[in-house]
Amino acid sequence: MAPDTPLVVPEINPGDVKKHHGIIANPNCSTIIMAMAVWPLHRMNPVRRIVVSTYQSASGAGAAAMEELRTQTADHLAGREVVPRVFPHPVAFNLFSHNTPIGPDGYNTEEKKMIEETRKIFHSPSIAIAPTCIRVPVLRAHSESINLTFERPITPQEVRSILSKASGVTVVDDVEANRFPMPVDASGQDDVLVGRIRQDVSQLDGRGIELFACGDQLRKGAALNAIQILELLTTP
Amino acid sequence: MAPDTPLVVPEINPGDVKKHHGIIANPNCSTIIMAMAVWPLHRMNPVRRIVVSTYQSASGAGAAAMEELRTQTADHLAGREVVPRVFPHPVAFNLFSHNTPIGPDGYNTEEKKMIEETRKIFHSPSIAIAPTCIRVPVLRAHSESINLTFERPITPQEVRSILSKASGVTVVDDVEANRFPMPVDASGQDDVLVGRIRQDVSQLDGRGIELFACGDQLRKGAALNAIQILELLTTP
Repeated sequence: MAPDTPLVVPEINPGDVKKHHGIIANPNCSTIIMAMAVWPLHRMNPVRRIVVSTYQSASGAGAAAMEELRTQTADHLAGREVVPRVFPHPVAFNLFSHNTPIGPDGYNTEEKKMIEETRKIFHSPSIAIAPTCIRVPVLRAHSESINLTFERPITPQEVRSILSKASGVTVVDDVEANRFPMPVDASGQDDVLVGRIRQDVSQLDGRGIELFACGDQLRKGAALNAIQILELLTTP
Repeated sequence: MAPDTPLVVPEINPGDVKKHHGIIANPNCSTIIMAMAVWPLHRMNPVRRIVVSTYQSASGAGAAAMEELRTQTADHLAGREVVPRVFPHPVAFNLFSHNTPIGPDGYNTEEKKMIEETRKIFHSPSIAIAPTCIRVPVLRAHSESINLTFERPITPQEVRSILSKASGVTVVDDVEANRFPMPVDASGQDDVLVGRIRQDVSQLDGRGIELFACGDQLRKGAALNAIQILELLTTP
């Protein structure tokens, strides 16, 4: 992909759609889900650092990968040998580091995309991001554990208030019922679900927030975002 | 548990076994797995902050929970309705925030244990820890994505060298083969597996390290650790 190819998430950088030279790219699905949760906050109080760990479903690797998860799981339950074909490692009742190539800095391609694409979409080349991308035996929808450091102090109440008004985000944060974003609830939804919103107890200056997000990367992470880009392009 | 009840991980704080007043506690399994990976480094260069996200298996909740994961998964594959009984949410091909009660600070009991027990075992009351505990549809062995900030700069080479000599730890960090710690490899093992060792690109002062650990919480997280405590108690 050419370095000047625009990556567009319509809720975040709609104006970038005009910068294209024939090609507009859909950002990586893990990047989109994180960006949807973080952007509304970043607009109000710049995010300086993100530590993110992903829980990526099989569907991110396509229909054959989803079928492999189903088949391998059935084989495992029946006591048959599990033979990986699409993924390099067993996926049934297992998890593994994202199987993209790893660079000399120790980060894999999926993790590098989360860094570079977020910086590009946010127009924030200096935002510090530490991603760990992990594949889990979930059929559909990616989840992400996100630890944020802001420029200025911020409270969970402010975060909840900002996210509850954000387009494309639904806050699911029911402490009483212990109900937070889950892949089964995110699957088939256009919105990215965000919850577990709390002040990070490890950052004593009040600039830390932790949250957990879940989004259907077949919807907002791929098809829906592409349709929204097309709508932007065709709207006069 | 009384506040002066010792929590012992024999590789880390064997001397604490003598402080008991009739009771010695086995630490929480998520705590033990993180402590095994971090302690050898903390001894050489004090850890100031830990951001950790867990990928906890069903076995941490007992045999009935493992059976529920198997049964629900078979039901899901057969197109039957999935009915949660042991866990409050569906576990087949899904994941959810650890279902322990959540305090006014937004952290659940499992996360609080990871903070308080680590501080106690390390004798480091000020170490800053930001945990997120998540249950995943894995039968056995817990995984943890761990982001560390040290007092002084440290390199991945140093980390690898220290951990490769540490008792109870095996380094699994094959970048060429894209092979890192996985629950299927950790299951039934006494050692905690550690890999994805890399300099954290989000900490420009060289004090950041990222790693991924995996340990069988039925072995090191429970039975093995308890036996090792007994051995310490009965050794003259």
